[in-house]
Order: sequence, then C-alpha cells, then structure tokens
Amino acid sequence: MAATARLRITCPDRPGIVSAVTTFLYTHGANIIDLDQHSTDPEGGTFFLRLEFYTPYMDVSRSALEAAFGEVVGNRFAMDWRLSYSDEPKRTAILVSRHDHCLMELLWRYTRQELPCELTMVLGNHEEPREAVERFGVPYHCVPVGDGGMAEAEARMTELLGPDVDLLILARYMRVVSAEFLAPYDTRVINIHHSFLPAFVGADPYRQAHEKGVKLIGATAHYVTAELDAGPIIEQDTARVTHRHSVADLKAMGSELERTVLARAVTWHLQDRVIVFGNKTVVFR
Amino acid sequence: MAATARLRITCPDRPGIVSAVTTFLYTHGANIIDLDQHSTDPEGGTFFLRLEFYTPYMDVSRSALEAAFGEVVGNRFAMDWRLSYSDEPKRTAILVSRHDHCLMELLWRYTRQELPCELTMVLGNHEEPREAVERFGVPYHCVPVGDGGMAEAEARMTELLGPDVDLLILARYMRVVSAEFLAPYDTRVINIHHSFLPAFVGADPYRQAHEKGVKLIGATAHYVTAELDAGPIIEQDTARVTHRHSVADLKAMGSELERTVLARAVTWHLQDRVIVFGNKTVVFR
Amino acid sequence: MAATARLRITCPDRPGIVSAVTTFLYTHGANIIDLDQHSTDPEGGTFFLRLEFYTPYMDVSRSALEAAFGEVVGNRFAMDWRLSYSDEPKRTAILVSRHDHCLMELLWRYTRQELPCELTMVLGNHEEPREAVERFGVPYHCVPVGDGGMAEAEARMTELLGPDVDLLILARYMRVVSAEFLAPYDTRVINIHHSFLPAFVGADPYRQAHEKGVKLIGATAHYVTAELDAGPIIEQDTARVTHRHSVADLKAMGSELERTVLARAVTWHLQDRVIVFGNKTVVFR
Amino acid sequence: MAATARLRITCPDRPGIVSAVTTFLYTHGANIIDLDQHSTDPEGGTFFLRLEFYTPYMDVSRSALEAAFGEVVGNRFAMDWRLSYSDEPKRTAILVSRHDHCLMELLWRYTRQELPCELTMVLGNHEEPREAVERFGVPYHCVPVGDGGMAEAEARMTELLGPDVDLLILARYMRVVSAEFLAPYDTRVINIHHSFLPAFVGADPYRQAHEKGVKLIGATAHYVTAELDAGPIIEQDTARVTHRHSVADLKAMGSELERTVLARAVTWHLQDRVIVFGNKTVVFR
Repeated sequence: MAATARLRITCPDRPGIVSAVTTFLYTHGANIIDLDQHSTDPEGGTFFLRLEFYTPYMDVSRSALEAAFGEVVGNRFAMDWRLSYSDEPKRTAILVSRHDHCLMELLWRYTRQELPCELTMVLGNHEEPREAVERFGVPYHCVPVGDGGMAEAEARMTELLGPDVDLLILARYMRVVSAEFLAPYDTRVINIHHSFLPAFVGADPYRQAHEKGVKLIGATAHYVTAELDAGPIIEQDTARVTHRHSVADLKAMGSELERTVLARAVTWHLQDRVIVFGNKTVVFR
Repeated sequence: MAATARLRITCPDRPGIVSAVTTFLYTHGANIIDLDQHSTDPEGGTFFLRLEFYTPYMDVSRSALEAAFGEVVGNRFAMDWRLSYSDEPKRTAILVSRHDHCLMELLWRYTRQELPCELTMVLGNHEEPREAVERFGVPYHCVPVGDGGMAEAEARMTELLGPDVDLLILARYMRVVSAEFLAPYDTRVINIHHSFLPAFVGADPYRQAHEKGVKLIGATAHYVTAELDAGPIIEQDTARVTHRHSVADLKAMGSELERTVLARAVTWHLQDRVIVFGNKTVVFR
Repeated sequence: MAATARLRITCPDRPGIVSAVTTFLYTHGANIIDLDQHSTDPEGGTFFLRLEFYTPYMDVSRSALEAAFGEVVGNRFAMDWRLSYSDEPKRTAILVSRHDHCLMELLWRYTRQELPCELTMVLGNHEEPREAVERFGVPYHCVPVGDGGMAEAEARMTELLGPDVDLLILARYMRVVSAEFLAPYDTRVINIHHSFLPAFVGADPYRQAHEKGVKLIGATAHYVTAELDAGPIIEQDTARVTHRHSVADLKAMGSELERTVLARAVTWHLQDRVIVFGNKTVVFR
Repeated sequence: MAATARLRITCPDRPGIVSAVTTFLYTHGANIIDLDQHSTDPEGGTFFLRLEFYTPYMDVSRSALEAAFGEVVGNRFAMDWRLSYSDEPKRTAILVSRHDHCLMELLWRYTRQELPCELTMVLGNHEEPREAVERFGVPYHCVPVGDGGMAEAEARMTELLGPDVDLLILARYMRVVSAEFLAPYDTRVINIHHSFLPAFVGADPYRQAHEKGVKLIGATAHYVTAELDAGPIIEQDTARVTHRHSVADLKAMGSELERTVLARAVTWHLQDRVIVFGNKTVVFR
C-alpha cells in the first residue's frame, strides 16, 4: 500500500476553497483518494476539509509541497491547516490503572495492525498490568503515586514520555491529572469516560446510572481539557439495560462499550479524521 | 380473545411467594399465561411479580377473587398488590401543545387498536390540533393559558378531565403543570422529555445537545413527579448524530425518537407491565 | 432558503476530476455547500461524486450551465452526470394495497414538508385507503385487479400516472407488477420489502422469520428491477425479537421498521443522494 | 456466592405447572431466585420454564431432590426436564483455525471469570494459535488435516476430547465436520457464522454481502446440526455498513460482531438459559 497524506483544514467559509485546494494538489501530481467537507453555515460559517491523497507521483518533496501550499493556498484563505503522512505513524503512549479491559483491547488491535501508530510505552500506577503488556512486546513503566503525591508522579511520567508524544491515551487511568501535566499535549490526550456524558459526570457513574434507573448506559471518548469530563466529545455509544442489571452487571456491560468506543475514537484520531473546533469535534469518517 | 387479568405485586422477598400465589390462582381455575418476577437482592430484597391469567374458567367472581386473594395471600406476605382486567380498558387523556408528532403517533396507534385504552379526550392550549384530533373521532378541548394564568387553566382542565382518569399523557405539553394539578393522578401521568435524561434537563435540550457536540441524541418517557424532569424513567432510546446535523435536524430526528419512546412507554403502562419502586421502575416485558 | 442544485457524477476514476468540476463551478459563481465522493478502487476504479451548490449567484442560466458543463467537463472525463434542482420537486406517485402504515407515514411526512416532492396521486387496488388519503388533499384512484387481470390494471395505472413521473413508490403494494409496466420508470421505482433481504425473499417473510427462529427481523427499501426482490438496496434496518414474539407481533414490529426504512430511502432519493451502480447503490448522506 | 441450581423444563402446557413446581421446591427448602416461562400458545401449546434456586437450605441431597422431582412432578406433567448446578461448571473445548479473534475473546472472558465453565483444551488445525492459548494456561493441541483427511483428524480430536465434553465451541473452525464426529455432542456444539443467517449461507459471506450491496452485515451463533448453517439460532446481531466499505473492511467490522455474538451465545448456554425446541431456541435472559 502506497503512502498517503492527510490534509486537514479549518478556515472561514467562502467560495473557491475546494477549487483552489484540489487544483493545487492536482498540478503537483497528488492524486486525491478521499475528500470530505463541512460548513457550519450555508453562508458565513466555518469551513472544514479533510483530504487524503497519494504521494508517490508528487513532483516535489513533502517539505516543498507544504511550503508552497501554505504560501499559495493557506494564506489566501486564512487557513489553519495540517498535513500528516501515513508512513509517519504517531508516537502513542497509554496510561492505565487497574481496570485493563480498554488497555487490552488497544494492545490487541495494535498487534493486528488495526491501530496505525507506534506504541512507545504503557504507564501505570500499579504493577498488575506489566506482564500482559510486556507479552505484547510493549514497554511498561510503573509510576505509583507515593508520598510525593501526584505532582511527583506526573514529573516522573513527563520524563518517561519524553518530548516526542503525538497521542496520549487515558485508558481508565483513575487519577486526575493536572493541567500542567497535560499542557504539552494540547488536544492530543484522549480519555474514556464510563458514562453517556454529560450525564453522570464525576465518580462512579455506573452506580449513579443504577440509582437513577436509566434504561440505557453509555460510554464517551473525549479529548481531555482542564475542566474534568467536559472536553470535546469524539465518540459515544449506548447499550440497553433493565431493572435486572446490578451495578456489577452495568460495569461488565459498560466495559464492552468502553473498549469499543475508545478504540474507535483512537483509530479516527490516528487516521487524522478528527478536527477540534471550540469544544466540539468534526469527525470525517 | 378471552379477557385476561394482570396481577402486580410488590413485597418483601422471602421463600414461598410464587408457590403461594400460583397455587391460589390454580385452585380457583385462573390459568396463568405469563409470569415474570424480579428481586432486588438474592436475600432480603424487595420482590416484584407480574402475572397474567385467563379469567373465563375462574370459579369465583372478580370481587370474590380479589377479596380472597387479599386475605389468603396478600396479607400473609405484606403485599402491595393490584389486579387489572384487559376488558376494563384504562380511561386515558392526552395533553398537547403545538408539536403534534407524539399526539399523532398515539392517535394512529389507537385507531389500529395497538393502544389498549379508552381515549376520552385531548386537551391542548392551542386550536391547531383540533381538526386532526376530531378526524380520529376523539373530542378535543382547547384550554388556552390566558390572563388567569396556569392556575385557571389547570382548574378548567381538572373539570374537563373529571374524576375518572386512569392515565394522563403529556405528549409534548409545553407548560409546566403544578403539583396540585398532578396530585389526583399520582403515578399515572407519563411525560415525554426530548433528551436522554438526566442529560440536558430543562428548556431546549436539542440546542443544549448541539452546543455540547454529543454524538447521540435521546428521548425519555417518565412518570411525572413534583420535581421537573426527574420522575421514574419508563423507557429511553438514542439515535446517532454527527457534526453535520443542525439544531433543526436534531429536532426532526428527535421527534421520531420521541414518538417511538412515548408510544412504547404508554403501551407498557396500559398493559400493566410497569411497577414504580422509589424513583425507579420495573418494566416486565 | 435559496434554491440549490445537485450534481451527480459517475465516471472512470483518474486524477483531476474534483479540480476540474469545482473550478468550473467556481468560475460560474456556483457556491458549493456540500461535496461527497467515492471511488471503488484507489487506482483504476469507478468514481462517484455528489455536489450541492447554491444557484442564486450563477452568471449563466441553468440550461447554459448544463450545456457548458457537458462540453467542458463531462465529455473530457467520460462522465455520466445529472443535474437536479431543489425548486423543481420530483413528481411522485404511491401504489398501495390494504396495509397502509407505509402510506400513512409518507403522507404524514409530506404534510410536514419533510418529503421534498410533489405528490401527484395515490393508486390502490382497494377502496379502504381513499378517505385517509383524500383527507391529506392528495388524489386517490382505485384500480382494482378485475377480470381483465393485472395487464388491464397496469394499463389503467399507466394512463392515470401519465408520462411525467419522477418517482413511483410501492408502499406495500401486494401485487407483482410486470417488467412492461415498470419499463418507463427505470431506476425510479422504490419498493419496501418486509425482510432483511436477501433473507426471506418471496411471500410472507414474517412467517418465514418466525419459523426460522431468527433473533432479528428486518426491512429493506430497494429499487425495483425485473427480478423480484433483487434490485439495488437503498436502505435496511433490523429490530431485535425473541421467542415470545408471535407472527402477529413480528408484523406489528416490522411495520415500524418498514415505514422508517422506506421514508429514509424515499427522502434520500428525493434529495438526489443515491447513485445506482450495477446492482448496488452509493448513498451519499 | 452460594451455589445455585437451574431447572429447565419443556412439557405440554396445561394448568397447574408453575404451582406444582414452585410448591415442590418450596417444601424442600429450595429458594427460587429467578423464574421465567413461555408458552407457544395460550391454550394447548408447549410450555417452557427456567427456574434458578439456591441450594444451601435444601432438606435433601441433590440426587434425592432429582429423584423426588421426577416422580412427583416430572412424570405427572410429562416433562422433559434437566437440573444443572452452578458449582459443577461445564467442561468446554474450543475448535479453531487461523482466525483467532473469537478464540481470543473467549479466552479473555474466561480469564476474567465471565465464562462460567472449565476450559479443558483448544484444538486447532494450525500451529499459530498455540503460543497465545498456552499463555492463558489452557492446553493447545494441533490436529492438522493431513493425508488421512478429515476422518483421521476427527478421530484424533474425538480421542483428545475424551468422553466428558459438555460444550464444544467452533470458534471460526474452517473445516466442515462430519455428522459422525458431532453425534456424541448432540445440541452441545455452538458455531459462529459470519453472516446474518439465513442470508449468505456457505463460503465467504462477507464477499457475498459486498457483492449484494447490503447496508447491514451480521453474525449468527447457532447450534450445529447435520445440515450446514441451518441449526437452531441462539443469537444474532448486525452492524451498519456503507458503499465505502471494502470486503476487507466488512471482515474487520464483522470480526467484532462475531466475537460479541459468540461470547453472548456461549455465556447463555453456560448459564443454562437456552432451551432447544425443534429447530428454534427459547433463550431466557
């Protein structure tokens, strides 16, 4: 399979954008294989575009293409744009606590080459997941939260992660991480929340759901922001429950939802299908 | 089709309940055709039972059966129990405002004999629905909210409804009704809320959902209690949405969810499948 | 809301198509508001494009635009292309028998302006639906299948329909129509089949489903071709059933699936979102 | 958690069954915690009952209870009945070929104690799965199909399985096994078929689905009978697909359906929730 490039654009909507972008690419031998667009308003809205194209027949280098695109097209339309390449997989790390069902699902899909990334490490605050992670050939580092508190643990994790992180996944990491820790990763931290947000924010959502007597439970994958459980939602799903289900049943059923929803959100992020806009996402899939 | 009786029981769980109930019915010629039960705990919980049986071969009258059951079985197990009969359809009224999609769905199903009730009237605060309702042969009364305010309107509706109401359906009635108005109907008022409660309580939930950027919208049918949007949930469902959907789209998609979810909840109530327990429901279906 | 045009294209895939199309439209003042594309293969496949654009600022008439597009773009890429306009609603007729749930759903949505078409008439082989149809202000013609057989009935329907039919909907029309009758309408006849095709082709699919003991039932909306129940599928959906459901229950549950699935398929057709390709469809939604 | 017993009954429907069964159990100190029933007809049908009860307070041994039940109740109502105990987990074996996603899901759930059985071995016709299976502490035997053909392989598997097999799972075992091989296991062999049966029987169902252009794909777990792909269905599910999905995409999406659907069917079987009746199943869940 030949390498592809993904171009994501956000800019004020006005006539001529698609024509300008596609003509630029065509004249440089970039063969478009997928194109999706969205505008928040028929007139005067914000415009979003995702383009995927083959790179083999391009008449210029990647850096030359990027420089030319910025000058010729990007500046003209005041675009916020980004190019990514399928043969430069994102460096990805996972944070986990004791519940390992989401972690296992990700490792499993990674092994099957369904997650197009380079999984650099798994960080946990317990020793339990080590054996399972190392079996998959992925390094595991245990950073317990000790007397030094969360600040010390975060410092250690920052050090282990290093400067080169494209995606950080909170796969049921049960500690609240600080805004300082998150800052370097911007909108590149994905969390799985075990409820249909914005219902049941906070602790123990399955217990809340059970007490409320809802007839559906849910899970939500979202980008992490400073405000807890309130970042841009990438994907959600629900499953039907009845009065027969105990809190334990909800947890078991919910864990299936969680691993599916998180895996989908991570995959779409890695395929550059998600554009964050304010506190919402555009997901081109 | 022969008439059936539905027996609903709530009582403290202890050994021997099913044996006592079914043996009592068997000895009186009541042939059980459906039985469902639930206990909140393996030991020491609350026990719920729903039984449906044929009445034709019973050796006693309904009133005699009820008296005997109360004495012989009900008192022994400290049961809260109720008997209803399929040939005594519930007297049902609908309240509506301008959005008539839920109303139309109910009228439609009523005409097809899918709603086992006697639809006595539709009450609205606008004239618009009159023609459509009267076409179905159902009386329509318009009770606008005028200078006398909601209190006056409620007094007029109470008068129109009369003393004999088994079920009141708020089919997108857009006014908040008072606890005083609701009091006589206890847990026999069903409302459809246009969100996946407890998310997006209050006004304009589709706008809230759009602003939050959720990937699923929902609808919730629940019994009405004094606290707005917080009564026992009977049924919920969700539908998938994307960034492409405007608030108007969410309303259109949501209206399909609303009519389906409300129709299901109303049908189950009319079939005596719902038992309210605290702020939750047991739905035997 | 301003009028929009929808351009649908099928052609051999090769570089430069999107650039050529969008540049042509841009230079004529046609503001693109939606664009979706698909290729059956990364290289050497068939290419499909759907474009929606505003017409108010166009610098030429519709006929001039069409002529120029054909010459400048269409011929160059060997395109099969078609332009439709939102202010030229499709002339649509419905065929029905005794089961009127699909018919009623369509009439209802039509009244709410959710079906962007001009509903010219309903044709049936029974008198029952007349009153309900005429209430909606739509003409009803009863064409019973008498001694002259189906051939005579088809001749009469062809006469009533006239030459100007953009879409014919078989909304549970229970007679098999001949290839001769269908011929003038090509891929503009939509049927609703009450099963998850290709399972349970032929008569009485709910009985077949019940006998097979499937755990899901379905409905399928498809274009009608000479081979019964085998035309290109536009939309399908399923609902969960259990051993408790009788054939009658399956029919009742299925009728909800049928009306939803048919309404979706018809809406997408009317919005020019469907492209037929061989025996399959591309649905841009 | 105390041990429970599950009683499953099939018999001609007539008055007094539930009363007789529950009174028998009550008088022997067997505390019912779950009861579900179904009758194929209001009168004169076949009756199915599943009862779960606690055994600790029983006044007789299991064998004494069984003997007494058969004499006092079973014979009286001409019952086909069976008692199973949660503390006598079913001896289960898995057959697999190269596609290991279903196998892995089952092993994973087994490790989490979500599959209440004793997993005795995995049999495969390739060496690939060995390492993964042995990591879970489960024996793996490779029985390739060699010059001796399937007959020889089946003989070897029969020998390895031994006489004591309660459940055999075909988790994408890609060879057709003979009626002779299956005979000893009766309705205790579960297969996962990668389509929504009865659609797309036979080889390569995802390719068939792609060629047909269906809008939903499915998976079916069923008991294996002599007729290929036609045994009693236990569980099915579907997922939405579009024209964008290649055959490879359908396989990837389908593999998620397959593992979920198979895991559900196996769990219900292990919990004695399934009763086979003719070519259909009653699933009490």
